[in-house]
Order: sequence, then C-alpha cells, then structure tokens
Amino acid sequence: MNIHAPQIGKNAPPKTDDVAVGPRLGSRKVYASGELFPDIRVPFREVALHPTANEPPLTIYDPSGPYTDPDATIDIDKGLPRIREAWVTGRGDVEVVAEPRQVKPEDNGFASGKHLAPQFHDETRKVYKARVGAAVTQLEYARAGKITPEMEYVAIRENLRREQNAPCVRDGEDFGASIPDFVTPEFVRQEIARGRAIIPANINHGELEPMAIGRNFLVKINANIGNSAVLSTVADEVDKMVWATRWGADTVMDLSTGRNIHNIRDWIIRNSPVPIGTVPIYQALEKVGGVAEDLNWEVFRDTLIEQAEQGVDYFTIHAGVRLPFIPMTAKRVTGIVSRGGSIMAKWCLAHHRESFLYDHFEDICDIMRAYDVSFSLGDGLRPGSTRDANDEAQFSELRTLGELTKVAWNHGCQVMIEGPGHVAMHKIKANMDEQLKHCHEAPFYTLGPLTTDIAPGYDHITSAIGAAMIGWFGTAMLCYVTPKEHLGLPDRDDVKTGVITYKLAAHAADLAKGHPAAALRDDAVSRARFEFRWEDQFNLGLDPETAQKFHDATLPKEAHKTAHFCSMCGPKFCSMKISQEVRDFAAGVAPNEAVEGMAAMSRKFRDLGGEIEVKVE
Amino acid sequence: MNIHAPQIGKNAPPKTDDVAVGPRLGSRKVYASGELFPDIRVPFREVALHPTANEPPLTIYDPSGPYTDPDATIDIDKGLPRIREAWVTGRGDVEVVAEPRQVKPEDNGFASGKHLAPQFHDETRKVYKARVGAAVTQLEYARAGKITPEMEYVAIRENLRREQNAPCVRDGEDFGASIPDFVTPEFVRQEIARGRAIIPANINHGELEPMAIGRNFLVKINANIGNSAVLSTVADEVDKMVWATRWGADTVMDLSTGRNIHNIRDWIIRNSPVPIGTVPIYQALEKVGGVAEDLNWEVFRDTLIEQAEQGVDYFTIHAGVRLPFIPMTAKRVTGIVSRGGSIMAKWCLAHHRESFLYDHFEDICDIMRAYDVSFSLGDGLRPGSTRDANDEAQFSELRTLGELTKVAWNHGCQVMIEGPGHVAMHKIKANMDEQLKHCHEAPFYTLGPLTTDIAPGYDHITSAIGAAMIGWFGTAMLCYVTPKEHLGLPDRDDVKTGVITYKLAAHAADLAKGHPAAALRDDAVSRARFEFRWEDQFNLGLDPETAQKFHDATLPKEAHKTAHFCSMCGPKFCSMKISQEVRDFAAGVAPNEAVEGMAAMSRKFRDLGGEIEVKVE
Repeated sequence: MNIHAPQIGKNAPPKTDDVAVGPRLGSRKVYASGELFPDIRVPFREVALHPTANEPPLTIYDPSGPYTDPDATIDIDKGLPRIREAWVTGRGDVEVVAEPRQVKPEDNGFASGKHLAPQFHDETRKVYKARVGAAVTQLEYARAGKITPEMEYVAIRENLRREQNAPCVRDGEDFGASIPDFVTPEFVRQEIARGRAIIPANINHGELEPMAIGRNFLVKINANIGNSAVLSTVADEVDKMVWATRWGADTVMDLSTGRNIHNIRDWIIRNSPVPIGTVPIYQALEKVGGVAEDLNWEVFRDTLIEQAEQGVDYFTIHAGVRLPFIPMTAKRVTGIVSRGGSIMAKWCLAHHRESFLYDHFEDICDIMRAYDVSFSLGDGLRPGSTRDANDEAQFSELRTLGELTKVAWNHGCQVMIEGPGHVAMHKIKANMDEQLKHCHEAPFYTLGPLTTDIAPGYDHITSAIGAAMIGWFGTAMLCYVTPKEHLGLPDRDDVKTGVITYKLAAHAADLAKGHPAAALRDDAVSRARFEFRWEDQFNLGLDPETAQKFHDATLPKEAHKTAHFCSMCGPKFCSMKISQEVRDFAAGVAPNEAVEGMAAMSRKFRDLGGEIEVKVE
Repeated sequence: MNIHAPQIGKNAPPKTDDVAVGPRLGSRKVYASGELFPDIRVPFREVALHPTANEPPLTIYDPSGPYTDPDATIDIDKGLPRIREAWVTGRGDVEVVAEPRQVKPEDNGFASGKHLAPQFHDETRKVYKARVGAAVTQLEYARAGKITPEMEYVAIRENLRREQNAPCVRDGEDFGASIPDFVTPEFVRQEIARGRAIIPANINHGELEPMAIGRNFLVKINANIGNSAVLSTVADEVDKMVWATRWGADTVMDLSTGRNIHNIRDWIIRNSPVPIGTVPIYQALEKVGGVAEDLNWEVFRDTLIEQAEQGVDYFTIHAGVRLPFIPMTAKRVTGIVSRGGSIMAKWCLAHHRESFLYDHFEDICDIMRAYDVSFSLGDGLRPGSTRDANDEAQFSELRTLGELTKVAWNHGCQVMIEGPGHVAMHKIKANMDEQLKHCHEAPFYTLGPLTTDIAPGYDHITSAIGAAMIGWFGTAMLCYVTPKEHLGLPDRDDVKTGVITYKLAAHAADLAKGHPAAALRDDAVSRARFEFRWEDQFNLGLDPETAQKFHDATLPKEAHKTAHFCSMCGPKFCSMKISQEVRDFAAGVAPNEAVEGMAAMSRKFRDLGGEIEVKVE
C-alpha cells in the first residue's frame, strides 16, 4: 500500500508508485457474480461494524477499480486487465481494425524531444470496430431484447447486494421517476432501450467496469481532469484519475487542452476502470494551431476516429450551438463560457455558416455507433452567471439537443444531455422540466449548477447546493466543481474535495428521491453516532481519514474512540447519552400511555439511582 | 493591522493583539448616517473596482464592527464603545440597577486560582432594567408606533446604500414573503410590531450594532462558539467571536459549558458588535453540579437575571420539551440530540412533572421583557438524523412553540423559533410550512438542516444545501455548521469555513427569493470575471484572500492578474475571450436580423484579420 502525491517530473513516464493503491480505510473489497453471466465480478466495498452493533456489514458502491483491491497487481505501464474484451469479441459482431489510425505529430500538438510525453506501449491490445452493418451499441442490443454482460453488471451494481426479499420502505419525492425496488437486468435493458439510461462503454475500453447513467439509477458524479497549455504532466493526470475514482468518481472527463493530448489520454484510458469522456473539439483545435476558423469537418472526423479507437467512452459534442442562436448571447453578462461553445460560435461567425457539427451530425453518429461511443450533447450556450440563466440562447440550444437526441437514437447511439452551469435556486427546476420535455428523458448531466456567483474559492459548495437539488429533480449525473473553479487548475487535494462534495450532493439527491438503497447508509451512520461507535461512524462516511483526523484533533486518545461522549459537549452534557437513558426508560410506552407509564418510569429511574455520570478530567 | 492566531495560554487574559484587527482585504469601511437619528453611523464595506470597470463601488453588509475600521482604537481590556447606551437611557424608561447581581463562585463552575479565568473589569458600566411598568422592548415600541434608533439603523443597513430612486428589477420566488423594494424605518417598525422580525438588543448590550432577523430582510447567519469541559480558553473564544464576525457572522451564540462560563461571556459581550445568544440552561446545569434532576426554577431564574444583566441579547429556552412528548422520541434512531432538550427530558422523567420552563414561562417572559432579551424558542426535540425528521415529537414541540410565541408576544417580548437539524431535501419545505402555520410568522432560525448523514467531516456542506433551501423558503437566520460537526470542537479555521459556507448559503437564498439587493453583488462578480478583472473578482467575493491564493497557485505572476486568460484553459481556449469577440461583432443584432447581420459581421471579422491570438509559453 502506498498512498502519496506523485513527484512532479515534467513528461516523465507515470510510475505505479505515483498512484494511490491499497484498500480504502475501514472497508474491504468484495465481489458479486452474475446469474446470467457467472463470470462477471461486480466490485463493492464492505464496511464491517463493531461487534456491539449487531448489524451485518454495509455494502457501498465502489467505482475505484482494482486499485483498492489488495489482491490485485497494479502496473501502470501495463494498464488494467481488459475484463470486457472477451464480452465484446464474444458477441461476434466486431472486427479487429487491420490498420488502426497511426499517431501523428499533430495528435500531441507537435511536441517533440523532451517536450513529448512518453507513449503507452501495449503490443497485445487490438483495436475493434463494428463489422459493416453490425449493431454494437448497448442501445441496439437493448432494443433487440438482448441483455448484455454490461447490463447484468450494472443491475448487480445498483442493488448494493441488498436481498431481493428484504423489506423495502420507500420514502421520497421522485418527481415522476420510475425507480424500482430492485434493479433487474431486464429493467436495465428496458431503460437503455427507451434511451432513459446509458452505459457508456466503448468496445475499445476493455478495462472498463460498466456503470449506468439514468434518472432511475443512483445519481452519478463525474470528475474533470486534464492538463492545459499552462500546467501539468502525464503522471499528474493518471494520478488524478486514480485518485478521483478512489474517492468515488463514477466517470472521468479528460479535458486536456495543451500538447501531448493523445499520449496522456492513452495512459489514462488504459488505466481507467471508469468511463472516460472527452471533448474532441479541444484536440481538433490543437491540430489546427488553435485557430478556431481553421477547424473543419475532416480534422474533426479524424479526431473522433483517433479517440474512438483509443477507447473514449463518451464524447461531448456541441452540435446545438447553431448560427441563429449566437446573437442571442450578445447581451449576456458573461456571453458564452463553454469552451467548446465559444470555439464553435467563433467558427460560425467567421464563416457565416451553420456549425459543421450540426451539418455533419449524422456522420458523427455513424462513427460513434461503430465503437459505441455515447453522446454527451454539449451545452455550449450554458449560462456563465446566474444573471444569464434560463435565457433564450440556453433554451434554444436545449431544444436543438432534443432534436439531435432523436437523430442519434435513430442511428442507434446512446445519448445524454449536458446542462448548466450557473442558476439561482428558483430557476433550477425549470431546467430539469425543460430538459425532460424536450429531450425525451435522455439522461441529464449538469455542471453544478452554481447557485450564486459571490464565492470564488468555494464554488464546490455554491454548486453542490444546485447539484443536490437538480439531482433530486431528476438529473442522472453531476459534474463536479472544485474549490479552484474560476481560479485555477485543481490539484489532487481539490480533486478529492470536489469528489467528496459531489458524492454527498448525489447521495442527498438519492435520499430525497426515495431511492430504496440510499437511506441504509444514513441510518447506519446515525446508529453508529447514537451508540458512540466512533470508528464505525468514520468508516461508514465518505472520508474516514478526515473524520478521524477531525475527531482526534480534540480527543486524540484511543480510549476516547469508545467514550460515550465527545469534545463538543464533554461528558456531562452529552445529549446522546442522556437520550439513550430516556429511551431505556421510555421503551414500550406509547404517547397516550404517557401519564401512567411515565410515573412508573420515574419511580424506576429514581430506584436505580437516577444518574449515570462519567467523570473525566 | 495584526491578523494571527492567538497564543493558547490557559486562562490568560485575552490580549488585543490576539484578535484579528484591520481592514478586510480590498474594501474600506464606510458609514451612513440616519435621517430621523442623524447621529447613528451604520457601517458598510465598500469595494472599489478597477478604473476600467467604469462602475461605482459596491457596498457590502458588514457585521464586523470597529475591528475592521483602521480609524478605530481596539482595546479588548476596555471593550467596545457603548454606542447604544445613550439611545437606551435617552428613552427615559430604564433605571440603573442599584445592586446588580454579584458574581458567585458557581457562576464560573467554582473555578478558582489558576483555573479561574480573569474577570472583565469596567467600573464605568452600569446595569439597566426597565422601570416598573415601563415597556422597553423593541416590540413594545413598535406597537406603540415609535420608531427607535435601532429601527432606523436596521433600515439603513438592509438597503446597502442603494439609491431609493434607482431602478429595482425583481426576479425570484419568495413563497409569500413581503420583501419591499426599499426598507424604510416605518417598514421595520411594522415588521417588528407584528412579530415578523426581531431586533435582538438587550438594553445592557450598549456595544451592539443593531440588526434585524425576519423573513422580509436579508437572510442572516449565526456562528456558535464556546468552550467545553474539555477544551478552550477565554482568549480563544473572544478571538473566535471577532473572527466569526470578521467573515460575516450576524450573531454569535456562546455555547460554553465548562467552567468559567460567566467570565468568558463577559469578555465576549463587552467586545461584541453583534447580538450574543446563549442557552441559559447550560450554565444553570453547571450551577447544580451537572445533575439534570437537581435543576429548579430558582437556579434557572437566577441565571436568566445574571445573563440579562450582562447583556445577552437572546436566550434559547427549550420550553417546548413537554412531558407528554418525551416518549414520542423513544423509537427514534437518534433520540433527543439537543443538549437543552435532553437535559429537560431527563428532568421531566426524573420528576415526572411538566417542564419547569413550560410551567414558569410567563415568569421567564417577565424577566426577559425587563431587559429586552429576545426569545429563541429552542427545538429540543429536533431530529438528530434524517431518519427522525418531521416526526410526531418534532412537530408536537413546534406547535407548542407556536402557543408560547403568543404568550411571549402578550408579554411584549420579541420571539424567534429554532428549527432543525437533519432533514432530507424532500422534507425541508414542510418544516417551513408548519412553522409559518403554527408560529404566526415569528422568524424561523434553523440549524442547517443537514440533508444527509453520510459525510462526517463535510457537514458544513451537507447542511449548507438544506440551509440555502430553507432560507429560500423563508427562514430568517441560519445557524452555521462547521466541518467539525459531530466530530470535535471547531477551531478558528473551522469557524471561518463555517461562516463563509453559510454566507454563501444565505446569499443563495436571498437571490432565489428575489431580494432586490442580492443580485447586485453576483452581477458585479460576473462582470469582473468576464472582463478579467481578477482583483475585482477576488475583492467582491466572500473570501478575497483564499480566491487570490487559489489563483496564484497556478498563475502567480503579477502580470497574470490582468491577463485575458487563466490557468484552466490557457490563452488559446479562453471562452471568455472568444465570447467577448463574439459580442463585439454581434452587438446590436437582434436574433431575427441574424442572417443579414451575421453576414456583415462575418465580412467585418475577416477584414479585421479575424483572430486576436495571445501567444504565451
């Protein structure tokens, strides 16, 4: 087990020692196997509780991959085992690409010599593509009535090892969602078939542990990583990917924009257990020297194929930034803030032509379909300030994304829809309602939204408020925001803070939606808290290390971890202790029996001495 | 200017050098005077913007007191100037208490020698009390049609120096609130008179800068400080009070529970520009050696008078924890978690009697009325876990608090109502609705609520989500939660994090409610962001130091503070830069003129060279 920050060596090859490997504190890795596909091994973390709890271990959803499995051998140079490859080839509908696209100098921004990041080498890896005429997307399998290993994997994952015959009390407001008590592989298939969920899973990402994004599944979170022209190295980005998933990121977007984009992405994908998303226009722009007007369909197409062959699982495509919408942004306080959106706006203005992404949308579908790359239809006109929220530009684009969703579905492609951004609380619900109305229940994937603009340095929090709310309303995946938003590139501490903050927002959403699995964890923490099982409280939480550190800052002694009080109140004032005493005496007395019952209890209390006081100095 | 952490010297007298003194970064202290009362000086912070902004300075609400005024002389030993004393004595309805209550050994938990915290000495301070038969509460003045200096002070404060003839665009959902475009002293009087707002202002807190708590005013926040049996000293607590208000706490509750409670509180009040709240039952319990059953009305009454004479502005009184409600908590996951609530529950059980707080409620009113101490009716049965939210115990108590509100109003006392706690998102609105229904619009004052229990170490965030929402729904003041919640006592870093987090939650609520002043600050930040006025963005935010530090972590050079790009995207990809270009060209073209207009723009764009590229390595 080695958990430490990577050494910053500009363009040194990443080392296995540079990434965080080893079990998460207080939990162990366990696997569940499939029924339809007995070979699949679905990972979970299991938190064993103190014997006095008299409770079974709690199972926790775990996107961290083999890195947290002490039995796994991790070698960054080799990449993760390709567990999915046999599933993909076993379906008999893909072919090995005889002459995969070769890496070109422009793929890495013409970096050379010491400026060029090292290549990832794996001679054993083949590049796959759908056979001509074959349908290889999860959407097409689902429509054909076929349950894939990916679908069963996801079904098992979502159930968190709950017994299907266990009582299932539902408590929530789900705004018309259709969350089942238990997820079956058939339910997954139906949700995929109607486009209400996706499993982003490029056939070339054999290392992937499949997951689902949809409003009837657990709310997911995405972490953005990526270098920029100003900062960062390969090792940093691989480390951030592993680090983000360690703390719970369900997908990772590589938003690299500088040199070495191709090589960095290779290292990330080969080592990633979670779906990787990208914004291909960033790399395309690099290939034309950063001049937006010089972009064209050919270079974009080339980039799509390059990345699809590498195994990117979803592409953000800003095809909704149409020429007529651009002037609608002119009077905004913050104009166009999406990078992809502004690049396309500039291209449209310069050429006075409709966006080539819109014009070539069906061509894009054909490429993405051949590898099962999912669409993440980008919101290039999202608001960059609360003042600009919900305006004509934003909603015009959203309606276009709804049209494009149907086109992509017609081509057999999986689709999700990106959403804002910066939206004050009273305008959040309208975003979800409009999205559901115009985008036919394709999963919504929002960035926050930030609910106020006055807190630079704390935008993980301003946005967690909006994220929790819109997740509750029906958003399927929340793109994290780190404390560095608007100010700088996140480092690994920021990545962790962003991930934990979004995990809690996503969970708050699950809880409010009444997801049948959500409250189990809250209740387990609450019982641990009430019973002063400090270690259990730490381990059941999102960040045991930090919880323990905070506790130990004021009560470091080992004995205090079992003490029936804490530093907030000290021993005399402990309300938990007192109310436990109340409970002991009041047990079994219904409110309407209070007068008689309480008299008896009062006598009993006095008889017993009436006070159990712990004296500690 | 000296800003540093205090030296921890157990029970050393606090030193002026130990507290944070000096202007807030990027702003200057300004004052507005009254019209009805020309002598009052209402403080604000004013942020001057970069000359290129061509904007007037932005005025910010400022509860930090003289500590941030470079012209003020701060001397912790002497306390703050008693600006209100002349207003109080000028009304001719108070008398000097000839024989104020003397400090007794039990007031400080029988601490002596080196364990006794030093006394605060000020021979010039007199103790006041209403003359027999006189009505000295802000509520009684308001009912009598009398506008006090406190009311005009508050009116000026809430308007943030906006010009009353300036256009006022309203955008929000206020759920039936009655927020005016501009606050007049007469509006304040009306709100106080009908009990919909309070000005917590003990006549013995002459150092106070008055503020209002009510759903039609800006949402306020409270910071809890206080030592415990385990930790902390006088100097620490005075420092935390100054520190909390520096970052924006509107009131401070001293929740001390160990020894030295009296002396610590004296230092805090004499140096506090904001209302100080306490929970008198904590000190009363200390006086009876920590044994809840030994509490009685006499020791409680003595404590109320002791604290009222010191100048405490509001008391949390858990008079709603009635005997019949206690068994309703027996089946809860986390029982009774309010300290005051559990103390009273234990007392009721032990004696099998109705709570002496409930039985003596009118006596309590008489005492509080004589000093204008406001009620904060405590929610002793609030849920301690999301599982226990909105149950019979909680709402039974709430209805009782509604009854007590009427009793207190009949005695001329100001009242606010405390609320939860731990509540998942879908159950938050019911809390506000029930409170409005049963408590007659008396201001609601909630602790969070936390929206999930799974994130110990991050409960400032789990609760900021709930706080922003309930603030939007109508809660008047939000009690902060720090990262140490459930784990340990907050240190000064935690206090700052808690305050900033709650400031952003309160502001998000103001924005969503459509408070006419709220969006001004967001818009100013957004314009600064769009125009790359980095220093302005920092200074307009809640925490300029942190924002600047985060920015400088990746782009430290001074030149970069005016650079038209940042480290997230680098120079080529800057969407803000590109969209500014779009705006330059699209300006003046309405959407329906797009086709012609865009053609002209496109030509012009090409003619001008079409690309403004910044090259930076």
